[in-house]
Amino acid sequence: MSEFRLGLVGVGKIVRDQHLAAIQATPGIGLAAVADPFSELAGIASYKDLAAMLDAEPTLDAIAICTPTHLRHELARLALERGKAVMLEKPPGATLAETEDLKALAEEHDAVLFAAWHSRFAPGISHARDWLSSRTVTAVTIDWHEDVRVWHPGQDWIWEAGGMGVFDPGINALSIATQLVSTPFFLKHADLEVPENCQTPIAARLGFRTAAGIPVDADFDFRHQDPPRWDMRIDTDAGVLKLESGGSRLIIDGEVVIDEPEREYQGVYAHFCELLKAGESDIDIAPLRHVADAMLLGHRRAVEAFIE
Amino acid sequence: MSEFRLGLVGVGKIVRDQHLAAIQATPGIGLAAVADPFSELAGIASYKDLAAMLDAEPTLDAIAICTPTHLRHELARLALERGKAVMLEKPPGATLAETEDLKALAEEHDAVLFAAWHSRFAPGISHARDWLSSRTVTAVTIDWHEDVRVWHPGQDWIWEAGGMGVFDPGINALSIATQLVSTPFFLKHADLEVPENCQTPIAARLGFRTAAGIPVDADFDFRHQDPPRWDMRIDTDAGVLKLESGGSRLIIDGEVVIDEPEREYQGVYAHFCELLKAGESDIDIAPLRHVADAMLLGHRRAVEAFIE
Repeated sequence: MSEFRLGLVGVGKIVRDQHLAAIQATPGIGLAAVADPFSELAGIASYKDLAAMLDAEPTLDAIAICTPTHLRHELARLALERGKAVMLEKPPGATLAETEDLKALAEEHDAVLFAAWHSRFAPGISHARDWLSSRTVTAVTIDWHEDVRVWHPGQDWIWEAGGMGVFDPGINALSIATQLVSTPFFLKHADLEVPENCQTPIAARLGFRTAAGIPVDADFDFRHQDPPRWDMRIDTDAGVLKLESGGSRLIIDGEVVIDEPEREYQGVYAHFCELLKAGESDIDIAPLRHVADAMLLGHRRAVEAFIE
Repeated sequence: MSEFRLGLVGVGKIVRDQHLAAIQATPGIGLAAVADPFSELAGIASYKDLAAMLDAEPTLDAIAICTPTHLRHELARLALERGKAVMLEKPPGATLAETEDLKALAEEHDAVLFAAWHSRFAPGISHARDWLSSRTVTAVTIDWHEDVRVWHPGQDWIWEAGGMGVFDPGINALSIATQLVSTPFFLKHADLEVPENCQTPIAARLGFRTAAGIPVDADFDFRHQDPPRWDMRIDTDAGVLKLESGGSRLIIDGEVVIDEPEREYQGVYAHFCELLKAGESDIDIAPLRHVADAMLLGHRRAVEAFIE
C-alpha cells in the first residue's frame, strides 16, 4: 500500500521523544524528510528550513509542524499555500488570531489541517466519550498537578510572556474536557498565581459553567511532587467516570475499565492518516481559547519566586 | 411606516449618554421598554429584568444589551432563544468562548445578532474605507491616549480582573483598524504596563504584522492629559490617510476631507435597523480576540500604583 509522505519541521525534544516512534508505528504514513536549522536525522533527508524542504521534495503530502509556537503560523501558511496538508503540534498557534487565520486558510484552499491535541488520544478517552454519549453530565472536576522541575527541566520559555506557564500542561486537560463535555462551557472566574520573577502562572484555579449551569472546575498546579496527578472526574445522571494518569486509566462507577500504557502520539498519527484519506480537517480552537479567556479574565496574585 | 420595537436591558451611563438620543433620532426603530433592577425610564414601560420584559412585551422585535459585560452572555442567550434580534454593546462578551457561543446560537436560530463596535460608525470611517479599497496599506500606526480620570471617573471595575484597563478604549481603535485593514493582522509582541495596585494595564504597546509583513503598531495610554489623542495613520502605496478625534476627522494627503461632530450611536442604530430589515447578523469577534491575544502574549511590567 502506498504511504502518505510526511515532512516534519522542527526536530526538537518532543519529536525525538514521541513523533519519530509514533510515525514509524503508524501504517499509511512515512517520514520522508525533516527541516531544522540546527538538527539532522540520520537516514532521513534533512533540510535547513521548510522552504528548502518543499522545493527539494515536491511529492510530500503533509507537513507536521513541531517548532516553537511563535514560528508555526508562518510555516503553516507556507505549507498550506504550497498545497500541503498540515499537522500542528499543540497549541496550534501563539495567538488566537493566527490560529483562526490558519483555519480560514485551510478552508479556502480546501486543505487538510489538523490541530493535534495529543491528550485526546489517551487510551481511555474514546471509551469515555462513548459512555458519556448516553448520559447527562452534572459536574466536572479537573486536577492537573505536576512537578515543573521534573516535567519541564530547563524550559525557561515556559515562564516568559506567551509561554503559558501551568497552562502548557493544563491545556491538555482542557483539550480532553472540551471533547468529552458535549456542550460548551464558559469561564466565570479564574485565579492565577504568578511567581514574582515570572510572566506566566505556576498555578491556576478556573471556574467554568455551561449555559445550563453545570460546573466545570479545574485546578492546575506546577508545585506538585512527583508522581503527577492528571485526573478528571465527570459526574453524570447515571454514574461517575474518572480518568487518571492523563487518560491512560478509565474508571467507571469504581470499576477499572481501561488501564493501558500511554500511546497518545500513535493515536495522533493514526487520526492524521484518517484525515488525509478523507480530505478532512480537525482544527478545534476551544482549548487555546479557554487559556486566552483565563489570561483575559483571571485575577493575578504574585507568589514566591520560582528558582529551578 | 411601522417601527421595530426595541427593548433595552441595562439603563446605565452609556444608555443615558448615548443610546436614548440615538434611538430617538433613528427612523424605523422605537424604544418600547427597558429592563433594569435599579433604574426606570419615565414614559417607557420599565421592568426589573429581561425575563419580565419578554413575558410582558411579546411583540418586541429586538433587544439591546447594555449591562455590565459579564451579564451579557446569559441575557443574550435568553433573548435569542425567545426569537428576538440582539444588539450587544462593546465588547460583545466577557470572554471569547461566550462570544463565539452567541455567534453560533444566532446562526442556529437564524437570528439577527449585532456586535456594536460604535467607533466603526465615527464620521470619517466610511469614507476612509472607500478610499482604502483601491490602495495597498503599507503601515498602520495607532495612538490612543486619554486621561482615565476624565473619561472613566469612578469606574473602579476597569482596574479589576476582566475590566481590560486601557484596552477598554483601545478596543475601539482595534475595532476601526480591523475594519479598515482588509487583511488580518497578528500580534507579535505586546508590552503591558500594569499599576502595582491594579489587575489591568494602564498602558500597552502592541506590535502586529499582517501575513505579508505590514506593520500595525498601536500605543494605548491612560496617563495622558486632556484633550485625548485618538489618532490613526494609515500609509498606503498611494497616499497617507489620517483619522483624528476617534474618526471624527479624516485627513487624506494633508487635506481635511471630513470634520464632523461625533454621532457614532446614530450610526450604530441605523446599521442595526438595516440588519433587522435584511435579517442579517454582524458579529465580528476580531477586536476582542486581539485583546485576549495581548493578555495571552503580552509582557507585563509593574508600574506606579494608580490612585484616582
